[in-house]
Amino acid sequence: MRILGIDPGYATIGYGIIDKLPQGLKAVDYGVIETPKTESIPVRLAILSNAMTGIIKKYKPDAISVEELFFNTNITTGIKVAQARGVILLCAINECGHLYEYTPLQIKQALTGNGRADKKQMQYMVKAFLKLKEEPKPDDAADALAAAICHAHTATYNQRVLN
Amino acid sequence: MRILGIDPGYATIGYGIIDKLPQGLKAVDYGVIETPKTESIPVRLAILSNAMTGIIKKYKPDAISVEELFFNTNITTGIKVAQARGVILLCAINECGHLYEYTPLQIKQALTGNGRADKKQMQYMVKAFLKLKEEPKPDDAADALAAAICHAHTATYNQRVLN
Repeated sequence: MRILGIDPGYATIGYGIIDKLPQGLKAVDYGVIETPKTESIPVRLAILSNAMTGIIKKYKPDAISVEELFFNTNITTGIKVAQARGVILLCAINECGHLYEYTPLQIKQALTGNGRADKKQMQYMVKAFLKLKEEPKPDDAADALAAAICHAHTATYNQRVLN
Repeated sequence: MRILGIDPGYATIGYGIIDKLPQGLKAVDYGVIETPKTESIPVRLAILSNAMTGIIKKYKPDAISVEELFFNTNITTGIKVAQARGVILLCAINECGHLYEYTPLQIKQALTGNGRADKKQMQYMVKAFLKLKEEPKPDDAADALAAAICHAHTATYNQRVLN
């Protein structure tokens, strides 16, 4: 089973593709989509949509795992990220159809057994699960791989996203 | 000039098309897109995307005017509306390109001269500006027409949306 994990954003969007094989998990590719600050939000959403659709078409994942939004105090940023997340969900449902959502807490728990694990612990576990030589960079790509690993570990217990 | 106004939402999305003619404004069509509660959010976003794209292709507006989000206390609803708004902005930029945003305050001010006008006053002015026999229903369609009228009145002073 091939899983695409996505860390939503509007300036930097992390993606990570892994294969779930009998011998364990394997990283296929990971990185970030970046949208230029000099462009308007609608244009940045169009750039994101094209890039995300391209990644899904290229890697043909069997499932897509998207991190849920956790609103902090900055509502203006929150609206922008949520708008971008809407575009990501649209690309995912149009191109793949098998779409799952996990909260940051669920992802941390699935990888470390601790819902309050810090960034360093998470990066260490991503590296370990995927048998990488180095911790994946940048952080957004590591977060996306973590979302994919979370789905690989919990898929059998989890239903397709319904809300 | 033909203007499409949009009142963003994820369950009910208002739209209103008006023509700005030498003799004044004229309503071309208005109504709502509804997405079924029984479907998942990603599927509802896909339904919204298809319907919105269809409206833009059918009426070929010269400009699209979208109401900005105003976050109230319900963050969960706010995230869902913002996600849907991202999809609306994507459709608008892909199909038209001339996209403008106005705050609720700007729209109220443009229609009534009062940024704190209530719903009844707004509906009365939408009816008056468009010389309609009745106030347009439902509210979401009236709000969308108001966004379109706002752009018709302020377009010369307003730059294309940059943020």
